[in-house]
Amino acid sequence: MRAEIITIGDELLIGQVVDTNSAWMAQKLNENGIELFQITSVHDDREHIIAAIDDAFKRVDIVLTTGGLGPTKDDITKQVLCEYFQTHLIEDERVRAHIEHLYQDRPDVLNRLTATQWMVPECAVILPNRVGSAPLMIFPHGQQLLASMPGVPYEMEIAMEEQILPYVTRFIAEQTDADIHYGIQHRTLQVSGISESALAIRLETYERLLPKNVHLAYLPKDGIIRLRLSSYGDVCKGSIDHSFWHLKYNVRDYLFDETGDSPEIIVGRLLKERGATIATAESCTGGRLASLLAKHAGSSAFFWGSIVSYDNSVKEHLLGVPEEVLKTHGAVSEETVRIMAESVRKQMSTTYAIATSGIAGPTGGSDGKPVGTVWIAWATPEGTTAECFHLGKLREQIIERACARALIGLIKIIGPKFDVLNEFC
Amino acid sequence: MRAEIITIGDELLIGQVVDTNSAWMAQKLNENGIELFQITSVHDDREHIIAAIDDAFKRVDIVLTTGGLGPTKDDITKQVLCEYFQTHLIEDERVRAHIEHLYQDRPDVLNRLTATQWMVPECAVILPNRVGSAPLMIFPHGQQLLASMPGVPYEMEIAMEEQILPYVTRFIAEQTDADIHYGIQHRTLQVSGISESALAIRLETYERLLPKNVHLAYLPKDGIIRLRLSSYGDVCKGSIDHSFWHLKYNVRDYLFDETGDSPEIIVGRLLKERGATIATAESCTGGRLASLLAKHAGSSAFFWGSIVSYDNSVKEHLLGVPEEVLKTHGAVSEETVRIMAESVRKQMSTTYAIATSGIAGPTGGSDGKPVGTVWIAWATPEGTTAECFHLGKLREQIIERACARALIGLIKIIGPKFDVLNEFC
Repeated sequence: MRAEIITIGDELLIGQVVDTNSAWMAQKLNENGIELFQITSVHDDREHIIAAIDDAFKRVDIVLTTGGLGPTKDDITKQVLCEYFQTHLIEDERVRAHIEHLYQDRPDVLNRLTATQWMVPECAVILPNRVGSAPLMIFPHGQQLLASMPGVPYEMEIAMEEQILPYVTRFIAEQTDADIHYGIQHRTLQVSGISESALAIRLETYERLLPKNVHLAYLPKDGIIRLRLSSYGDVCKGSIDHSFWHLKYNVRDYLFDETGDSPEIIVGRLLKERGATIATAESCTGGRLASLLAKHAGSSAFFWGSIVSYDNSVKEHLLGVPEEVLKTHGAVSEETVRIMAESVRKQMSTTYAIATSGIAGPTGGSDGKPVGTVWIAWATPEGTTAECFHLGKLREQIIERACARALIGLIKIIGPKFDVLNEFC
Repeated sequence: MRAEIITIGDELLIGQVVDTNSAWMAQKLNENGIELFQITSVHDDREHIIAAIDDAFKRVDIVLTTGGLGPTKDDITKQVLCEYFQTHLIEDERVRAHIEHLYQDRPDVLNRLTATQWMVPECAVILPNRVGSAPLMIFPHGQQLLASMPGVPYEMEIAMEEQILPYVTRFIAEQTDADIHYGIQHRTLQVSGISESALAIRLETYERLLPKNVHLAYLPKDGIIRLRLSSYGDVCKGSIDHSFWHLKYNVRDYLFDETGDSPEIIVGRLLKERGATIATAESCTGGRLASLLAKHAGSSAFFWGSIVSYDNSVKEHLLGVPEEVLKTHGAVSEETVRIMAESVRKQMSTTYAIATSGIAGPTGGSDGKPVGTVWIAWATPEGTTAECFHLGKLREQIIERACARALIGLIKIIGPKFDVLNEFC
């Protein structure tokens, strides 16, 4: 069965917030075998919301809306849904009790406006919103349904996982199975060190010989190319496995991952498997590498810390890079990053350390070291290696790419060696 | 004049990438007086793309598409646009020369697939893509137009700023002025320390008395509420100024900013104005605060560095937090963050320092210090202050909110004091 997402809010259309919800929801829908057909962002406007719902119901059977459920005057989704589904608001005692409990320690929140949150559309199925005041609403619509949830990301995520998805998958199971694509499968490989077009040429014959319902997509980002193999409908499991192995074989020289996880998650997993720890010493990445390593739950098992030495005085006094090295070779040099990596590894007593130093721009470049030049060093119990990269011209891109290269470099040192041939035999 | 964005790519609909382009484009369109009516994300699919373009042209005159322009087989936007506008591909010598120049040092990229990039639709206006191989295409369509650009964010951004926006604004100027909303204005205030609903009650009378074409929106995020005042159409400048001052007056107790900039940009501006510098010592935020301070161009003028002490051994050995303090008070305590802030301020010789220590979860909480407890300290030449926050239950949210609180705390210490009454006189 197919679904669409309608995100509601002026803030999306004046660019005040980035819509991160849709990608998260898309993943969850896919994992549950529901194909997401379209995402539409509309204004907090009666006619616009109604038109978008009308259009979506012409294409798909499941419509998910986010946003516009706050207690303030600019949020009108609940009223518009009442009108669309020809119903009216009634007080819901369970929602009221939940909200009163939620804000029992905050009398300033338990006010007249918050009270509007326990007024719900009579015809809707109301599901509990464990972490917020806006109730989750499901509107049955013949063989179709619309689910409305808040736009605040963590409220939406909890609502989707705990309430909406279980409800929607049950609803689908109750309908005829005729249209259900339970067969959607995705498999992802990650490669680095080759351009997208060179890779596509290498894979041309492979792509031509793919089974009809299996598609290959190229997703380049930060110097990594994710290759996603998708099968829709009636492809048997063996067929996508076979195509996947062939893909691996074709890209074996550039392959560093076959889980599709982000590099910092792969690094975390490898370090935990080995009982190893890591620290970073960062100049141009400014703490971004550390924050990636610390981002996910459980990172305190392997991430010890970082010395961010943005200013040269910090490189000198806290990382022991000698003044002569900084003068002779510069802050962006093999000599400097090697000392940075070894120093932080020693000071924090970790198994591994990574150091970065580069020119993120927009100023600070020279002929010999243009903007985008980044040195990265990896200190390990077996010694230290370093490599120079040229990562483009744009500050944010240089920082993100440097972090990706730093992590991939470590994955290549400590990660699994893919023995693609033997795997097949 | 109104515009719509169509983002093209399966990766958006299976949630493999977050659409950051649309928000960026929305901002730029708004700045140029072009109202963005809708954002639609569709598959790399011929029928779907054609239906989306058809629908968009029924609603607006300017259609901007991103994505689907790579040299690989999964990208079909150029072919579909050829079909839609009933044209065919011809070789463009200027594009060819540009691409050959772009990849002169990379013979592996200058291959047969890349060569397809210099084939362009005959009826389209071709604009140069300075940083990539996919040409920018503008299709005139009576009094309407469609502009197609790559989906890679930095290519899209450069394309929009240097080529597409200038072209589109000239195009609009050449049309009749009847439909142009040059009058769109947005003004933003930021407050913290009050809940959204309590704020909305405080502003109820204010909202009721707003001029007809002036709207107020509430955008809560990470403990900050942005209040955006927007006027559309025929509101005179004086009217929105007056409404803006009244808004400021009403929220003066919670106001910390009237530029709408992100907290780290405000901090950077304040530090640069004062010739001051900053360092951070971070536990639960894991380098995220440092990376925010280092994120924007020019940060090396005020950001010296950070000691990320994720593990307690680093707090002890690199930040000098005595073992007894860690044992008696714990890593998440006023005593610990005060020492962390003062130590990093001294070690890096900066004007200010901020330290964070908290329980980001999902594990590690206790009855006395549940997940979400975060201590933050600010060390200044005048002494050190510290405050305890409870920032929710979700890891990513706790980290982001802690960074926001850390930065707002500094803004409150060193930022402008808003003398709203005198400003009006």
